[in-house]
Amino acid sequence: MSRPDGVPAAMRAAVLYGAGDLRVVDRPVPEPRAEEVLVRVAMCGICGTDLKILDGGFPQTPPYGDYIPGHEWTGTVVAGGSAVDELGPGDRVCIEAHHGCGRCGNCLTGKYTACLNYGDAGRGHRASGMTANGGFAEYAIHHVGALYRLPDTVTVEDAVLLTTAGTGLYGLDTAGAYVAGQDVVVFGPGPVGLMTAQVCKRMGAAQVILVGTRRSRLGLGAGLGADRTVDATETDPVRAVLDLTAGQGADLVIEASGGPDVPEQCGRAVKRGGKILFLAFYPDAVRLDLSAVIRKDVTMYTARGEGGDNVRRAVALAAAGMIRGGELITHRFALEDIGEAFRVVRERDGEPLKVVVVP
Amino acid sequence: MSRPDGVPAAMRAAVLYGAGDLRVVDRPVPEPRAEEVLVRVAMCGICGTDLKILDGGFPQTPPYGDYIPGHEWTGTVVAGGSAVDELGPGDRVCIEAHHGCGRCGNCLTGKYTACLNYGDAGRGHRASGMTANGGFAEYAIHHVGALYRLPDTVTVEDAVLLTTAGTGLYGLDTAGAYVAGQDVVVFGPGPVGLMTAQVCKRMGAAQVILVGTRRSRLGLGAGLGADRTVDATETDPVRAVLDLTAGQGADLVIEASGGPDVPEQCGRAVKRGGKILFLAFYPDAVRLDLSAVIRKDVTMYTARGEGGDNVRRAVALAAAGMIRGGELITHRFALEDIGEAFRVVRERDGEPLKVVVVP
Amino acid sequence: MSRPDGVPAAMRAAVLYGAGDLRVVDRPVPEPRAEEVLVRVAMCGICGTDLKILDGGFPQTPPYGDYIPGHEWTGTVVAGGSAVDELGPGDRVCIEAHHGCGRCGNCLTGKYTACLNYGDAGRGHRASGMTANGGFAEYAIHHVGALYRLPDTVTVEDAVLLTTAGTGLYGLDTAGAYVAGQDVVVFGPGPVGLMTAQVCKRMGAAQVILVGTRRSRLGLGAGLGADRTVDATETDPVRAVLDLTAGQGADLVIEASGGPDVPEQCGRAVKRGGKILFLAFYPDAVRLDLSAVIRKDVTMYTARGEGGDNVRRAVALAAAGMIRGGELITHRFALEDIGEAFRVVRERDGEPLKVVVVP
Amino acid sequence: MSRPDGVPAAMRAAVLYGAGDLRVVDRPVPEPRAEEVLVRVAMCGICGTDLKILDGGFPQTPPYGDYIPGHEWTGTVVAGGSAVDELGPGDRVCIEAHHGCGRCGNCLTGKYTACLNYGDAGRGHRASGMTANGGFAEYAIHHVGALYRLPDTVTVEDAVLLTTAGTGLYGLDTAGAYVAGQDVVVFGPGPVGLMTAQVCKRMGAAQVILVGTRRSRLGLGAGLGADRTVDATETDPVRAVLDLTAGQGADLVIEASGGPDVPEQCGRAVKRGGKILFLAFYPDAVRLDLSAVIRKDVTMYTARGEGGDNVRRAVALAAAGMIRGGELITHRFALEDIGEAFRVVRERDGEPLKVVVVP
Repeated sequence: MSRPDGVPAAMRAAVLYGAGDLRVVDRPVPEPRAEEVLVRVAMCGICGTDLKILDGGFPQTPPYGDYIPGHEWTGTVVAGGSAVDELGPGDRVCIEAHHGCGRCGNCLTGKYTACLNYGDAGRGHRASGMTANGGFAEYAIHHVGALYRLPDTVTVEDAVLLTTAGTGLYGLDTAGAYVAGQDVVVFGPGPVGLMTAQVCKRMGAAQVILVGTRRSRLGLGAGLGADRTVDATETDPVRAVLDLTAGQGADLVIEASGGPDVPEQCGRAVKRGGKILFLAFYPDAVRLDLSAVIRKDVTMYTARGEGGDNVRRAVALAAAGMIRGGELITHRFALEDIGEAFRVVRERDGEPLKVVVVP
Repeated sequence: MSRPDGVPAAMRAAVLYGAGDLRVVDRPVPEPRAEEVLVRVAMCGICGTDLKILDGGFPQTPPYGDYIPGHEWTGTVVAGGSAVDELGPGDRVCIEAHHGCGRCGNCLTGKYTACLNYGDAGRGHRASGMTANGGFAEYAIHHVGALYRLPDTVTVEDAVLLTTAGTGLYGLDTAGAYVAGQDVVVFGPGPVGLMTAQVCKRMGAAQVILVGTRRSRLGLGAGLGADRTVDATETDPVRAVLDLTAGQGADLVIEASGGPDVPEQCGRAVKRGGKILFLAFYPDAVRLDLSAVIRKDVTMYTARGEGGDNVRRAVALAAAGMIRGGELITHRFALEDIGEAFRVVRERDGEPLKVVVVP
Repeated sequence: MSRPDGVPAAMRAAVLYGAGDLRVVDRPVPEPRAEEVLVRVAMCGICGTDLKILDGGFPQTPPYGDYIPGHEWTGTVVAGGSAVDELGPGDRVCIEAHHGCGRCGNCLTGKYTACLNYGDAGRGHRASGMTANGGFAEYAIHHVGALYRLPDTVTVEDAVLLTTAGTGLYGLDTAGAYVAGQDVVVFGPGPVGLMTAQVCKRMGAAQVILVGTRRSRLGLGAGLGADRTVDATETDPVRAVLDLTAGQGADLVIEASGGPDVPEQCGRAVKRGGKILFLAFYPDAVRLDLSAVIRKDVTMYTARGEGGDNVRRAVALAAAGMIRGGELITHRFALEDIGEAFRVVRERDGEPLKVVVVP
Repeated sequence: MSRPDGVPAAMRAAVLYGAGDLRVVDRPVPEPRAEEVLVRVAMCGICGTDLKILDGGFPQTPPYGDYIPGHEWTGTVVAGGSAVDELGPGDRVCIEAHHGCGRCGNCLTGKYTACLNYGDAGRGHRASGMTANGGFAEYAIHHVGALYRLPDTVTVEDAVLLTTAGTGLYGLDTAGAYVAGQDVVVFGPGPVGLMTAQVCKRMGAAQVILVGTRRSRLGLGAGLGADRTVDATETDPVRAVLDLTAGQGADLVIEASGGPDVPEQCGRAVKRGGKILFLAFYPDAVRLDLSAVIRKDVTMYTARGEGGDNVRRAVALAAAGMIRGGELITHRFALEDIGEAFRVVRERDGEPLKVVVVP
């Protein structure tokens, strides 16, 4: 592929040179291979995982000095590889971070976030911004199968959060997805929790109970569709859930907080025969009364990222005006100020919820 | 159980004495056994199946002269049997027609509409108004497990249609239920089709396409949540669906019309890898290009009535203000006028949609 | 029901009078109600749960002085209640311990081991030997829906273990059941683990790896279908599983040991995108690297007892000569010697595997 | 890639030049692209679909004059493309015909036989021998993700039938796969039916009933695991199934015959709440009492070819000695005699079951 008209040879990009050493430098604009697409990045969110990446030692990344993080990006197609005809220049897209190898047993059965060739670029796997370069740059490339065309009615801000919504939807997909008329609890009103609470309500949950510790986030959740909010600094959340569910517990408990004590609370807040969905990660091993969960015949689902083609559903929901995400964005920074953006996220300076970089 | 205060010994009831011979007569008020509940009927809908029942020869009914039809009823609890403490006098309830035997392999695995002891009252099966006496009467009894308490905010009119919604929800349950962000087609804007279209939208379907032949019903469907309506007397519905789905067909096609040609159209309107859900019955065997359906890897689901505890979900959706049904009721008749009510349904006199009897 | 010919008025039964106080005394032979069946008990196994019951404080049991434990029993029908015609005198049966209320949301959807009316006999729930009297007696009654007719070819000894096999099958049922051509690990060669390993092999598992600490049990497992056995006192079981699965881990890891460290090992032995099934209980809360499990997109299933009508499948497998259980029985005692039987189980005197009582 | 040592520039291949015009000619040995593998074909089966292909007009094939059919092949790897390192020269492999595009919504969710880019080679879809060149040639190429390494213990003859077994397994996978302890009927003892009956037995079906019209095939089925065979020329198969299932019908009815009347029979032979799996194609639209199927709450599954990574399971079952296929091969022909091979298949000369070509 020759360089398309108007695409420069070089771009600005945030490159990780080592633990804690993220520099904004000039880089060649990447060239898409046959099934890849080159995108002018409009916006890229910072996720909790990015903090771990910045701290160094994240597994399976490109080498220091080459590695451009950023996996919650959106933008406009500039050019496609030779095998791409679904998308063309000018198409606005959002992404799934993960594109599987397409040839292992997990990819063949639709479980590409669990690709057995995870991190093996030679065999075709890529997790944008994690095992391959991502979106903290003016341009990024991705596999065509991980890009979803946006309708005009979806804003760039919403688009960043559709990747996040895809994680919640994938989790729900894995957990059976039939929440209509049921009681759902969501622990953790961070971006994943808020987008997940919102989609649960749009999928017909009778009662969405959002549990958190920060009043502003709970208020935002109420605006997005949570029927009840529980401030865990004031009220025992398990007690609150039991009170709101006639003592039976919730049909589905979604854990999106990462709090070490929350898995145990999930086990107590869930109904006999119900489900727990884990969408968070923990700093350390957790302690859990597993016997109590087993005695209740509870199934525990997990989702790592936005698989199962669920970002497509997220885009369709946004296109139909059923979900939105832009209001989760509390801070935006130019690419050159990405260091400050990361500082704000890490220090929680100014109650950041979703902080984005605009390259 | 002695007769509760205020419950008379006799009641008026519509009893089927033979094919076409439905008479409103005096009957003893039934007495609930241990797990049964006596209900003062507030309203009972007439369903297409009731026409077949009136015509005689419906299988497994109580004997002529004893048989009180009516399976879409709602009312207020008057008394419960000795083993009932979940419900008490004054509780308003709606019903599932089917209560399984609770002891066959199908009931034990949650498929009670397919009870292997269907029609065997001795083993505990009952389908209210079909294999046991139903709701065209001032009082009716039912198993406590087939009654759902209504919140005050749900009207009697809505309650009649919640049984119908339960059929749609059970079908969706069977078919995987994950319609969020997908394209769904519903053929047939009768009560089942309209309630199903409505719940699909509340479950997050991106686009609900309702296909019918009567403009008034399509208009009602649009008001209840259908995004697109297709008048099949004017437009080829398969063509219309393909046009509205970028040529790919719908993810889920729901057939609620009973039209002999519609199963074939379902096969053409569904996407590769998609699903068809049959909720209707046909006057005769149907012709179907089964090879085309197989070549598309399509699964065909069916549902006979409101199983899987789905009326509970319907009630929860109504309680949360997410679905309603009362506006489907076009005609209401006193019990003494049930003959006229059946005439209106059979002759489609005055564009009846849901005709109810008020005992 | 009058007493059937040949059934005495009194029987010998082991009654729990308090913690540790189990006495063999005379009791009236129980009379079956309408949907119940009276069975002459042929044999009743002792399960780990029975030790907890004997120790006192087990929740929701009949009162001390009335309570007859024993939930792994088999025998011959003596009489049925008025609503029973599926079974008749002389039919040999085995049991599911659990019979749900048949009217809560979980029973209606087939999850009766998670009955929302668990322990509420008034509403119809019963767990034989746990919340209702069981099989450490000459006669026992149970709900007809929890009894499975045995063909002549199935021995009494096998029948005791079919209840156990039902637990494994229910767990597999819950976990998707499609193990054909896959690698399965079973931790814990106790009765549940051995019966589960056996059914996995009969369901087409390519490789069943059985992990334990006692050589005799591993040998028995090999005879029943385990392809590989791992002695965890000699070999790191996680390492062994990875070696036997080309480094990828097993598709399904079944935990039937109850060892506090084993849940953590399950997380490491399971493949990305795989499944863990918990069938055991733990003395205390467990520590688990939950993040690692989530990062692998692993679902964790649980089963508490033999639900989902799976004992029916177990009987069918035994009838077809595909599974057997009798060889798990290492010790048998007369009812009068039940105290000694419990001692042997508790003290593991003589390497007991399954100890049975013959009333 | 340069040509590997020992691989000639040209090969013999059967090329379709037009309807009925299949010629064995010289062709260049194809060169594998990055993710492709070049295989020396050892054997290639003729399938019913191949007759339709030979007759011309099969959709989406390569152009006449270029098109090499054959989609049931096996052989030995000669060389891999630049992105292939899972397989190397000397590895024996069998295939899945279908390799999806890996980027449409169906491929991303594991439904690649229903690839939305079916036949679009530019986007990466290929069905070997159907939309791309196949195995009636000395050499063939395929995507690495559609090749499965064979252990030494699996013969070439078995390997041809493992592709067929993959179709049955995919159908079972789609239909829930949990046949252990159940009654299964298989209509049609052709290669698909026989391999499917065999895997059902290996997956623990209590009773596999095989229905056919040719005694030799039924006998072969009995040898492979069918518990009962029904000769439909002598016995009404529906009656026979009901007799063998205590009047209830089979839990799962698999239709692999393609007989126009068989779908209707499936509806009558299946149990209430049971399943029908369609694996065959019909010469024309079929007539079906759909209402009866709906009234029974029956789900109808379909499978088109061997998807869901199920050939991997088939290989594992063969490796474990649990299934075999070689004895289905009744005739073998050299590539130069492929015309005669097709004649034998078409005219059913000498009771052919599976006819193979040895290039």
